[in-house]
Amino acid sequence: MNLERWNRQIEFILEADREKQIERQTHICGYSRREGDAEHAWHMALMAWLLQEYSNEPIDLAKTMVMILIHDLVEIDAGDTYAYDEAANRTKEEREKKAAERIFGLLPEDQKGKLKGLWEEFEACETPEAKFAHTMDNFQPMLLNDYNEGKDWTSHQVRVSQVLKRNERTGAGSLEIWEYMKQLLEKNVSDGKLIDDRQKEK
Amino acid sequence: MNLERWNRQIEFILEADREKQIERQTHICGYSRREGDAEHAWHMALMAWLLQEYSNEPIDLAKTMVMILIHDLVEIDAGDTYAYDEAANRTKEEREKKAAERIFGLLPEDQKGKLKGLWEEFEACETPEAKFAHTMDNFQPMLLNDYNEGKDWTSHQVRVSQVLKRNERTGAGSLEIWEYMKQLLEKNVSDGKLIDDRQKEK
Repeated sequence: MNLERWNRQIEFILEADREKQIERQTHICGYSRREGDAEHAWHMALMAWLLQEYSNEPIDLAKTMVMILIHDLVEIDAGDTYAYDEAANRTKEEREKKAAERIFGLLPEDQKGKLKGLWEEFEACETPEAKFAHTMDNFQPMLLNDYNEGKDWTSHQVRVSQVLKRNERTGAGSLEIWEYMKQLLEKNVSDGKLIDDRQKEK
Repeated sequence: MNLERWNRQIEFILEADREKQIERQTHICGYSRREGDAEHAWHMALMAWLLQEYSNEPIDLAKTMVMILIHDLVEIDAGDTYAYDEAANRTKEEREKKAAERIFGLLPEDQKGKLKGLWEEFEACETPEAKFAHTMDNFQPMLLNDYNEGKDWTSHQVRVSQVLKRNERTGAGSLEIWEYMKQLLEKNVSDGKLIDDRQKEK
């Protein structure tokens, strides 16, 4: 065992623990409390296994799961940027890039390269794995929110156009899942959980 | 899309969400609160990627990660059985088998077979993947507990012999990691965080 390498790996593992303290806007099923980032990643990784058959393109499952497991680590420094907070989203990219450099930089050079590379690949959303991971990232909170009667939308007065913009690339990972999500959306519009601002755009 | 299949998958995903509410005895780094089962599984899966080079035998990483992600789902019904609660551990196996049948039984037959099979493989702890997953399952809380100055041990008055028994199979997954863990143990014995009952056994 190379002790310098080992110590870096352990330091990274302990640093990653802090992701458990990052709270999302989404609530867990039953709405008892907000969901943590680490739980969200766990749920997404499990969903990637369960729903891989709906990916538009074949995916490397191990790669997709690792990408999912690490995709929110940057939030340890950069915080959770709420999908519908437009001001915060303008500075998100810069804050997260700096965070990636510091956090993945704790690792030995080869592992830093691999994980930082996977995070950049996720962000770029161009490969089959990144596209499917994004589909999971958007489907998971929608499923929870729908289960919780849309409270995460109503409490923030979210508009349909915002959800559609957020989901611009969801169909690129899985057209079948995106079809289902659109049905969930329409149901929540009918139920008054989402503000329908689409007519204004015509 | 086969709707009956899809609905079963979604039902399972929503059921799995309940794992987030299962609290472990271990605390997250900083000791601010107890760790949830889903966070524990996320951390273990990430560690499996990071530390795979220390596995005694080559492992299929995707298989190991999926095994880790689902290994505690049975606790949705059976609850978290504290490693050092001897009475609860006597009924653990039966409670968890029943839980596995119900929870994995929500899935389509083929996916039920795969995940229930992986859970059984984890429990049997005979394959390289199961052995390494067990190493992660034991190393992860020890690392957190050591970071938290052994408070999870002192609050339960844990004895060294109990930790050694719990870790009987840890070296079967990784001798190198087990060597490091033994050093952590001795340090915590020296610091009075673990009760040294080994002399009584001589």
